[in-house]
Amino acid sequence: MIGSYCVFVPEELILAVDGVSVGLCAGAEFNFEGAETLLPRNTCSLIKSAFGFKLGKVCPYVESCDVVVGENTCDGKKKAYEIMGPLLRDLYVMDLPQMKSGSGRDLLKEEYRKFIGKLEEVTGKKVTADGLKKAAGIVNAKRAAVKRLAAIRASDPAPISGLDALLVNQVFFYDDPIRFTGAVNTLCDQLELRVKKKNGVFPKGTTRVIVSGCPMAVPNWKVPLLIESGDAVIVGEESCVGERGNRWLTEVKGDTVEEILDAITDRYFNIDCAVFTPNPSRVGYVKEMAKKLHAQGVIHYCLQFCQPYIMESGPVEKELEESGIPTLRLETDYGQEDAGQLKTRIEAFIERLKQR
Amino acid sequence: MIGSYCVFVPEELILAVDGVSVGLCAGAEFNFEGAETLLPRNTCSLIKSAFGFKLGKVCPYVESCDVVVGENTCDGKKKAYEIMGPLLRDLYVMDLPQMKSGSGRDLLKEEYRKFIGKLEEVTGKKVTADGLKKAAGIVNAKRAAVKRLAAIRASDPAPISGLDALLVNQVFFYDDPIRFTGAVNTLCDQLELRVKKKNGVFPKGTTRVIVSGCPMAVPNWKVPLLIESGDAVIVGEESCVGERGNRWLTEVKGDTVEEILDAITDRYFNIDCAVFTPNPSRVGYVKEMAKKLHAQGVIHYCLQFCQPYIMESGPVEKELEESGIPTLRLETDYGQEDAGQLKTRIEAFIERLKQR
Repeated sequence: MIGSYCVFVPEELILAVDGVSVGLCAGAEFNFEGAETLLPRNTCSLIKSAFGFKLGKVCPYVESCDVVVGENTCDGKKKAYEIMGPLLRDLYVMDLPQMKSGSGRDLLKEEYRKFIGKLEEVTGKKVTADGLKKAAGIVNAKRAAVKRLAAIRASDPAPISGLDALLVNQVFFYDDPIRFTGAVNTLCDQLELRVKKKNGVFPKGTTRVIVSGCPMAVPNWKVPLLIESGDAVIVGEESCVGERGNRWLTEVKGDTVEEILDAITDRYFNIDCAVFTPNPSRVGYVKEMAKKLHAQGVIHYCLQFCQPYIMESGPVEKELEESGIPTLRLETDYGQEDAGQLKTRIEAFIERLKQR
Repeated sequence: MIGSYCVFVPEELILAVDGVSVGLCAGAEFNFEGAETLLPRNTCSLIKSAFGFKLGKVCPYVESCDVVVGENTCDGKKKAYEIMGPLLRDLYVMDLPQMKSGSGRDLLKEEYRKFIGKLEEVTGKKVTADGLKKAAGIVNAKRAAVKRLAAIRASDPAPISGLDALLVNQVFFYDDPIRFTGAVNTLCDQLELRVKKKNGVFPKGTTRVIVSGCPMAVPNWKVPLLIESGDAVIVGEESCVGERGNRWLTEVKGDTVEEILDAITDRYFNIDCAVFTPNPSRVGYVKEMAKKLHAQGVIHYCLQFCQPYIMESGPVEKELEESGIPTLRLETDYGQEDAGQLKTRIEAFIERLKQR
């Protein structure tokens, strides 16, 4: 059982050694007092939450994992894994590139190769081309299912709430992949019926927004709840828990481990996380989403102290606004203290969208 | 004229094309209102200052630079360069590794090779083995001079204040290297005479501290001034503007550009900046400094929102205290609002050191 906190950890490789991949708890304000004995106060809620759960021994996944895989994404996580190491049975840290260059891709592939070595060592199993191909097929099918769900949300009236769709994207990290794929496809069948009957969870013409930015781990539903309790529906998430995590499939060509590993590397190297510099494709895709999902505006969501996304949010807002897509930038944490203030700002933004 | 903000940008390569290397202004609370129109408020003072100076056009160095070299160190700087690019004539961003691995070193060497290409393109000159060897000699001599100064500070009474020594370490980034080397060696001659005569700037037996952490760019003298206005003397700086920037020389072996570039890469790859994970040699060296400079304690200095150093400060404090070296962790910015509070904390810490 391999636990992780990031979409750069390839489930394909874990499945190829018959492992179970699971996303670890990091979405609730649990035991932050404990976390702050080890971490600076000015650390993002996601990292504090991971520590709070671990220290409190209340995340069943992290407690039962054989290996926890860390990764050098942001400074916060990169340095936090140094502090987390001694708390865990086996922490394995994966390096990641910071630029979309040739050597960046080489580094990623090399790290995936090393990770295969680690998995083989832990499981005593060997990664084969067949196993890897089968694993890529399973994960592709899972991604295709959530992509199907994402596409259905282009309909008006919206057949599913953003909150429910987010939950699907969150469960993506926990459930058995084959069972999950089946369940999401069944859900999509039902939603397609709804679309046909023009049944929606909100009236036709409800203001539609995209949420873009930091990932929302279970049960971090604060901002989506505020948006959809107002007079708007979320029709897409440009997030690691959402389209950024799923828009690319692995295009397997060839029959050797090397060739399939190349395809997997290419797939993950596409991910346009804000830790990359520069990272122009991300805002490009937000624009594309707004268009294809018929959204009137974008709510940019940042966790406080998440430097990569906060730094990127200014230029992203500027580019979206200049493209005629109104954007609201929010910066918050897992606490509920600012819920009233956020509600007011979100309502004012939705009002702005309605005036257009 | 090549400007930079980081000790990972090799002056040797710049000198090898007869360029001038200069550290750019980032040490004063200047035009933060302007900077905050482009940057998040929760950005460290050093980055805000760089933007403030650029927007106000008051740093003569950045205004006259042909190229400004950015580097992917921390998230803050990495993402800030994306925003800074359009403000500059020519911004060149260098990628940096995050781990001290074989592929990390390969990446650094490759980046230095690309940087040579950029320098050759801008200057129209060719880097030769002779030119590179001569440049390495010039920079080595400059580093040897500040290392000589650092070693002299082991004497009690302290022959030079920490504030003056910091100024030398700051001017390191601005002055002509040959002139600077001469001036520092002259200063060292004078200090050695003082040591012989047992003349000090503070009485013998004054409490001695090491300052460790974030770099202090001109004119960021806030914390050293508070320390030395109290009843203590700073005898060493474990900082990029200090020993971390200078403790390694380039050990040139061989006569080809390739071999010298290898030596330069090895030299820079030693730098134990907190952006690396893990980064154990840094705290190891702080302990070594405390011993050889006869310091009674360490003041760990962090700029607010500088995640790598803030994250590292907890484990560093723990290891130092466990080694019997009392440590005070400070987190501040370029403002003067907290000067009173810092003074009280520093005085209490010095009192603790005296009681031992």
